[in-house]
Amino acid sequence: MSDMEMKLVAAARAAREASYALAASDADVRNAALLAVADMLEARREEIFAANAKDIDAAKAEGVSAPTLKRLRFDEGKLRDVCAGLRALAAMDDPIGRVQLKTELADGLTLTRVACPIGVVGVIFESRPDALVQIGGLCLKSGNAVLLKGGREALHSNAALFAVLREASEAAGLPAGWAGLMTTREEVGEMLKLDRYIDLIIPRGSNAFVRYIMENSSIPVLGHSDGICHVYIDRDCDELMAAKVVVDAKTQYPAVCNACETLLVHAQAKDALVEAGRALAAKGVTIRADERAKAVLAGAGVACEGASDADWETEYLDYIISVRTVDSVEEAIAHINRFGSHHTDSIVSDDEKAVKKFFALVDSAGVYHNCSTRFADGFRYGFGAEVGVATGKIHARGPMGLEGLCSYKYLLEGHGDIVADFAEGRRTFTHKKLL
Amino acid sequence: MSDMEMKLVAAARAAREASYALAASDADVRNAALLAVADMLEARREEIFAANAKDIDAAKAEGVSAPTLKRLRFDEGKLRDVCAGLRALAAMDDPIGRVQLKTELADGLTLTRVACPIGVVGVIFESRPDALVQIGGLCLKSGNAVLLKGGREALHSNAALFAVLREASEAAGLPAGWAGLMTTREEVGEMLKLDRYIDLIIPRGSNAFVRYIMENSSIPVLGHSDGICHVYIDRDCDELMAAKVVVDAKTQYPAVCNACETLLVHAQAKDALVEAGRALAAKGVTIRADERAKAVLAGAGVACEGASDADWETEYLDYIISVRTVDSVEEAIAHINRFGSHHTDSIVSDDEKAVKKFFALVDSAGVYHNCSTRFADGFRYGFGAEVGVATGKIHARGPMGLEGLCSYKYLLEGHGDIVADFAEGRRTFTHKKLL
Repeated sequence: MSDMEMKLVAAARAAREASYALAASDADVRNAALLAVADMLEARREEIFAANAKDIDAAKAEGVSAPTLKRLRFDEGKLRDVCAGLRALAAMDDPIGRVQLKTELADGLTLTRVACPIGVVGVIFESRPDALVQIGGLCLKSGNAVLLKGGREALHSNAALFAVLREASEAAGLPAGWAGLMTTREEVGEMLKLDRYIDLIIPRGSNAFVRYIMENSSIPVLGHSDGICHVYIDRDCDELMAAKVVVDAKTQYPAVCNACETLLVHAQAKDALVEAGRALAAKGVTIRADERAKAVLAGAGVACEGASDADWETEYLDYIISVRTVDSVEEAIAHINRFGSHHTDSIVSDDEKAVKKFFALVDSAGVYHNCSTRFADGFRYGFGAEVGVATGKIHARGPMGLEGLCSYKYLLEGHGDIVADFAEGRRTFTHKKLL
Repeated sequence: MSDMEMKLVAAARAAREASYALAASDADVRNAALLAVADMLEARREEIFAANAKDIDAAKAEGVSAPTLKRLRFDEGKLRDVCAGLRALAAMDDPIGRVQLKTELADGLTLTRVACPIGVVGVIFESRPDALVQIGGLCLKSGNAVLLKGGREALHSNAALFAVLREASEAAGLPAGWAGLMTTREEVGEMLKLDRYIDLIIPRGSNAFVRYIMENSSIPVLGHSDGICHVYIDRDCDELMAAKVVVDAKTQYPAVCNACETLLVHAQAKDALVEAGRALAAKGVTIRADERAKAVLAGAGVACEGASDADWETEYLDYIISVRTVDSVEEAIAHINRFGSHHTDSIVSDDEKAVKKFFALVDSAGVYHNCSTRFADGFRYGFGAEVGVATGKIHARGPMGLEGLCSYKYLLEGHGDIVADFAEGRRTFTHKKLL
């Protein structure tokens, strides 16, 4: 084993050991730790800003783009946000120990299902240093040990923030080693083999990266995968509303997974298409339309390019949208289920029947009516924050907050009860729901 | 592509297509289909028994063991059981569409989380033909399309039962192709690659087999893995109760995953150890004990062999038990978390503090007090039946019934709501819990 491997295994083993005590810890201790981290972040602000300045200088020297620089910056505003987030988490109900089910199996034999932490979680995230604090906070609140790996560009910032997370929380009574920091891609590769110590990997990043993790991990992975989100404009709809929703879904923040990539339009919703096309063009969006939509848009003087089949599978993450004409809500649904990424899809319609069909048949984590796909987010859903957005269907789906970081266990309390008594007919199950 | 591959892909694609309609199907249709399957099984009993006779003859010719023959037999008793099971499922509440969460995000913008089927599930199960009907019924009730693969020994029985499952359900209105049958191991290998069509694999079988599936699948796997279950006899306990619980946990059905493999005994619970040792020996159980337990048992005239470290990691599935002495409940917990399989572990104790610690710190799907580990089962838990027992912590944990076969989706209903209004301060989130 190399030094790196030995260090990583030691960190993972320490996290595993800490995870048991953490799972049994009082909510008061975890909440006090969250507040202590917020206080220490504020107390050590200068140290953190200095570390961040190093990362910013290095990034500038490498000539990174303006949006990347913006994401990388950790300033007073970001500090205020993450501290407010930690304090809000501390005030939230404890997700651990919540009774989910209680059944009397037989006289004097009671089954209770209670929420418990997953155990040890490995999270790989992008270059925003504030993400480290948010993810660390969510794991702490939900009683999970965590191994964190941030973006290479944020190396110094992450080290400074992590030191505070760990020191403040351990001083507040959290078990030593509950949080670990990885700094290299090689460590991530090694981590994927440690199924003995780690229960779940949450990768955030490009689709290719998430796919790589999934294909190379013997540990379960909940992917923050790509987002090919759709807005479908139905035949019967408010045209101005349709345009407003599409513009928000495409342009409010185009670089994220819940932005709209394809607009589907009913063949008879020509006015809505023209309205949406004009509004998108006014925002500087390039439109790639199929033949029928192109004819409608061109007829109304809206510039657009032709779309090819590859467009339906493309996540632009940019001021580009593809437009396809469909002849029915069923055709829109079939397109979404075939080409979409099961993230978030919205219908704009006044037809209750069409909406009902869309809700029942679209196989996505988020299915919306008359609103923008951009609402798909843990904060907006009221979860406080999110560790990722899951586009699979196992465990958590959609924005993953505290609940997604929980598992459960069954507690059975008896008085010497044995199965033989039931198998041989001396006793019978009652299965009485107590909750 | 070989013929086999083409057939398998066609079946998987058909299941995927059917899954959308199935997810949107009325509970009435699914329940009627369950009843129709039960009726047709009874009507075609002779045909089914004849198919089963072929399998039994072949198995006898191969000289399989008596327990295997017993599991393979599908007779009037088994028919009665599976039909009763299907009718009980039909009477159960619909797991689909259940509202799990409802929040007003802002005035006129409502988020609802509803249960929905996972989609397409692949289940690989052992040689009991009745398992095919149980698993098919659970998938049908929960609106999941399913690809089934049973044991090689039950080939003819499975074909006959599957024909009824499919014909009766499709005649009752289920979408064509919702259920598919695989018959070879090669098909299972191919299935593991079809992540485009299949959402979840549930393998039941030996530990090595489940591990093989996990390591070779790009599809999420919920493992029905091995069971190294423990009974821990604490210092303060009712000795007769301790013996009774251990005997049931070990001998009521030793060949299953929830049977006890290791007995942990507090060093000061010598009387309980002797009581348990005598009772186990009387049932013909071979005892493999550590030095300290061996001395106690030998002193009381109970025969036993020595245990080696390998015993703590061994699933005997037989009339053999390992015994280890511990000096505290903490040591028992540490042993269980290290050597156990996170399946089901029980403490026999009168000490409330020790029980509380055991419940909080044992990291298993089932944590029991004063009762046998053999209760870990979907039927006994009141779930009707189970598709498997999950020993991981993601998604379902423990016996997996209808709920484990469900995912959820978020429905968001608005009136033209856009994120820009919130980002730019014109509107604010209310996050009012409506449920």
